[in-house]
Amino acid sequence: MKKVLLTGFDPFGEDSINPSWEAVKELPDKISNGTIKICQVPTVFDKSIEEVTKMIDKWDPDIIICIGQAGGRFDITIERVAINIDDARIADNEGKQPIDRTIKKDGEPAYFSNLPIKAMSKNIKDNGLPASVSNTAGTFVCNHIMYGVLHYIKQTNSTKKGGFIHVPFIPSQVVTKPNKPSMSLKDITDALYYAIEACIKNEDDIKTTEGKIF
Amino acid sequence: MKKVLLTGFDPFGEDSINPSWEAVKELPDKISNGTIKICQVPTVFDKSIEEVTKMIDKWDPDIIICIGQAGGRFDITIERVAINIDDARIADNEGKQPIDRTIKKDGEPAYFSNLPIKAMSKNIKDNGLPASVSNTAGTFVCNHIMYGVLHYIKQTNSTKKGGFIHVPFIPSQVVTKPNKPSMSLKDITDALYYAIEACIKNEDDIKTTEGKIF
Amino acid sequence: MKKVLLTGFDPFGEDSINPSWEAVKELPDKISNGTIKICQVPTVFDKSIEEVTKMIDKWDPDIIICIGQAGGRFDITIERVAINIDDARIADNEGKQPIDRTIKKDGEPAYFSNLPIKAMSKNIKDNGLPASVSNTAGTFVCNHIMYGVLHYIKQTNSTKKGGFIHVPFIPSQVVTKPNKPSMSLKDITDALYYAIEACIKNEDDIKTTEGKIF
Amino acid sequence: MKKVLLTGFDPFGEDSINPSWEAVKELPDKISNGTIKICQVPTVFDKSIEEVTKMIDKWDPDIIICIGQAGGRFDITIERVAINIDDARIADNEGKQPIDRTIKKDGEPAYFSNLPIKAMSKNIKDNGLPASVSNTAGTFVCNHIMYGVLHYIKQTNSTKKGGFIHVPFIPSQVVTKPNKPSMSLKDITDALYYAIEACIKNEDDIKTTEGKIF
Repeated sequence: MKKVLLTGFDPFGEDSINPSWEAVKELPDKISNGTIKICQVPTVFDKSIEEVTKMIDKWDPDIIICIGQAGGRFDITIERVAINIDDARIADNEGKQPIDRTIKKDGEPAYFSNLPIKAMSKNIKDNGLPASVSNTAGTFVCNHIMYGVLHYIKQTNSTKKGGFIHVPFIPSQVVTKPNKPSMSLKDITDALYYAIEACIKNEDDIKTTEGKIF
Repeated sequence: MKKVLLTGFDPFGEDSINPSWEAVKELPDKISNGTIKICQVPTVFDKSIEEVTKMIDKWDPDIIICIGQAGGRFDITIERVAINIDDARIADNEGKQPIDRTIKKDGEPAYFSNLPIKAMSKNIKDNGLPASVSNTAGTFVCNHIMYGVLHYIKQTNSTKKGGFIHVPFIPSQVVTKPNKPSMSLKDITDALYYAIEACIKNEDDIKTTEGKIF
Repeated sequence: MKKVLLTGFDPFGEDSINPSWEAVKELPDKISNGTIKICQVPTVFDKSIEEVTKMIDKWDPDIIICIGQAGGRFDITIERVAINIDDARIADNEGKQPIDRTIKKDGEPAYFSNLPIKAMSKNIKDNGLPASVSNTAGTFVCNHIMYGVLHYIKQTNSTKKGGFIHVPFIPSQVVTKPNKPSMSLKDITDALYYAIEACIKNEDDIKTTEGKIF
Repeated sequence: MKKVLLTGFDPFGEDSINPSWEAVKELPDKISNGTIKICQVPTVFDKSIEEVTKMIDKWDPDIIICIGQAGGRFDITIERVAINIDDARIADNEGKQPIDRTIKKDGEPAYFSNLPIKAMSKNIKDNGLPASVSNTAGTFVCNHIMYGVLHYIKQTNSTKKGGFIHVPFIPSQVVTKPNKPSMSLKDITDALYYAIEACIKNEDDIKTTEGKIF
């Protein structure tokens, strides 16, 4: 039985809802032979990493997947890499807006997710929902927490697996945003289910070609 | 009790499913104080108009709403106007591809929908789903059937109301189409419900400003 | 020798420049065997039609082409049709914002451009610039003036030709508008040149299939 | 007097032209107090790095900027980071298509550009052309050569500066690609000029907030 820790964020910016947390809340307690534990983290630099690492210490999960909103993206995106930089376009939920700041002075320039990202993307698509691998988690709190989790795994010489999934807006968020893509909460929740299922089943990733360049 | 006739199309082009018909099939028999009757029409020039007018003659509906797929659009679009021209980018389901052909020699250059299009768009948005009024139904079979229905209403000096609603791709259609927007079948079906509800409740349209220019 | 009247608009909304007028100003006095006359019209309902019809009466051109900005479009679009409605998302340059208002009580529901729209689009593309036929000029002052010109031609039983071309933003306009397409002023000007050249050379339009549905 | 080495790629995939090389060719020999040297590199894994490092050894430039095409992007993008992975959606110009391959076994997970990327983006925008900082150079030959140059700088403990600029399609490339953005060759060339000018003038980067998240 594998233990899977999932995090979602609270709302930020102009939005009063965050689909990442709404979807994480809807997931069942068990997926395949994995036990799911969920926790909401604040959209705040540093504090978000503190809270997720506290949960890792407390619950000792095998797999940690953080989930966040990528408003404007068309599909579920499985992130490949987190980079050692904070560069905030807007303030976080405590008013901090770091510009070109190194996240961890003793960290590597970047950490690659050690989740089976292509198997995750493929399992979502095989179940009829659009997904792809992304090569950037941005430079806001999403990249920040992904970097923090992978840095923690590295520093503790852990065999844990970690990574990040970005989800699109849900329809109610785009009613006032013309020509922005969205995905229903149910489809986002189902896609997360399939991604997690692939994580549990695929120790090693599969080798497939992804369709998008940028 | 009002009688509402809804049509959806069969699949065309590269797609093996047409969300317009999938959604129409899911609607209930009654919406507000309206009785719903549905019928599938072929994605074929001329024949589509013949079939819907046959249904109108047979069932004598108060309201006729044709529904079609607008792959690439982000939201539910309520069409404002149909123009007297066929200009097909691809062949229809019987291999016909008219270029710059007048639909009805005795028809007007265009017919405006006499449905309460802004009330329909507003009711969808008030229920949390993205919608807008569109000023073009294209020049393929969607515009063709809309034109045919409105021409029939005009010619018969009827008090019937008629119009057209375009719906986006559903998620399974965009799995292999990177960066194309989609909407879940349930959300499309719900949106059609709200649009029809507004048709039945609003004899006259409301005056509101729409957010999109093109 | 044909006489060609071109109009461009003054800036409106949030923009301090209007590429339609900037490009029209750059065109030569002669194109093929046509003499070019240009005039700026205000982005104002009614007044824009008054000014262009005054110019038509005064100069008696064979061809009238109005040009306007379609911010957000990717290519040069040759408009197929103008519809008998004003429905303004924003106020015009004199503060008027008509909602669902008929332009001409005695007008037809729509008028098709009698310019060779496909020959115009093709000549632009043959010269290496992106173009297409559009089925909607919107419901703001662009559609309004196009409708006004075609209504005037119809009412006066004239053999004059009339139509409308939409041009994208130029690069300086999108510096502060992320992910909006633009086209350089020189390319817009060249594209207008090729469109006009095709107007003069093609009495009758060509029959080709256009690539875009909506 | 600073020495600046610029590279552009040969055409790849479905395109018969590569705007990166077309623009690089048009640049003057001197920009500000910098001497410009240019070289075309093949869109081929490994060989592209070999050729640029050969040029670095031969000419000993202070600044190395590789330029490549990012078809589908709207503006000039200054790349922030290169990651240690090749993952090719299509074959390169010698038929190689590595999937999830580490570029340099002894390399770091990623290298940040040490060019003044925000000053470069700002100087382009201050001159009226759209630009932004990008957080991903993809996983094809563009990221590959950027990684190779920065790895070389790191390995040789050099004080050289290196980085990458992505440019959009030019208009002739999108004539057959509906709804794809483009930028004229002259504007791309000018934008590169302003980017290079900023490189030469700004030893240290400026701290500004960029407008785009992803």
